[in-house]
Amino acid sequence: MKPSHIEHIGIAVKTLDEAIPYYEKLLGTECYAVEEVKDQRVRTAFFKIGQTKIELLESTDPEGPVGKFIEKKGEGIHHIAFAVEGLENALEEAKESGIRLIDEKPRMGAEGLHIAFLHPKSTFGVLTELCEDKNK
Amino acid sequence: MKPSHIEHIGIAVKTLDEAIPYYEKLLGTECYAVEEVKDQRVRTAFFKIGQTKIELLESTDPEGPVGKFIEKKGEGIHHIAFAVEGLENALEEAKESGIRLIDEKPRMGAEGLHIAFLHPKSTFGVLTELCEDKNK
Repeated sequence: MKPSHIEHIGIAVKTLDEAIPYYEKLLGTECYAVEEVKDQRVRTAFFKIGQTKIELLESTDPEGPVGKFIEKKGEGIHHIAFAVEGLENALEEAKESGIRLIDEKPRMGAEGLHIAFLHPKSTFGVLTELCEDKNK
Repeated sequence: MKPSHIEHIGIAVKTLDEAIPYYEKLLGTECYAVEEVKDQRVRTAFFKIGQTKIELLESTDPEGPVGKFIEKKGEGIHHIAFAVEGLENALEEAKESGIRLIDEKPRMGAEGLHIAFLHPKSTFGVLTELCEDKNK
């Protein structure tokens, strides 16, 4: 596996309304998209910085993954996503090398990307996403 | 403030010896440097992916910042570092906009960078580093 770059960093926040103005100031750039990802029970807000996006995640359901994360750990960095080509092969390779997968097969994420998560138990505590933009 | 890119992501790990082989496989690239930063009481290991580095952090002192982080939260993502030009001005600007600073003045970090941290209490739970490479 050889990811080309960090596609985005996911950050769990209590409310987008409060966090967006902070990130607009910190990054000196405007939030360019807000999108609900029903599957993940989140509203997301995106900023671009160099090759990478900052993806703020606001939970829409206390029982969803980001709702539970915030309840347990508070606001903060939630995951890192690496851009790969050939996501299915990358997952196969990860599995063969002993990494536990959350998603055995790719599914759709925000911005139309194909995504899959690796389990933090086998990635030294880092919730790790692999993603592929098949529109490129 | 307008950072150009994410300079690195700091990840707290229990031991570099175990984490380095995992990241070499995940990123498809070799660790290119291991460096002790005595001031921070850590040993660091670096990988390059696109514009960004992954900086693994192994504590050399249980009472140091990374030692305490791991004791409290376990292994995982520790901080994000944004590359800026004019670090002193960026700190001034952050302070004026109400962000609490950990470092009022830049200090030396790994790889000879000038660095300063913003406090996670005022950055929605994200320990945030600003850094400048004055050798560029």
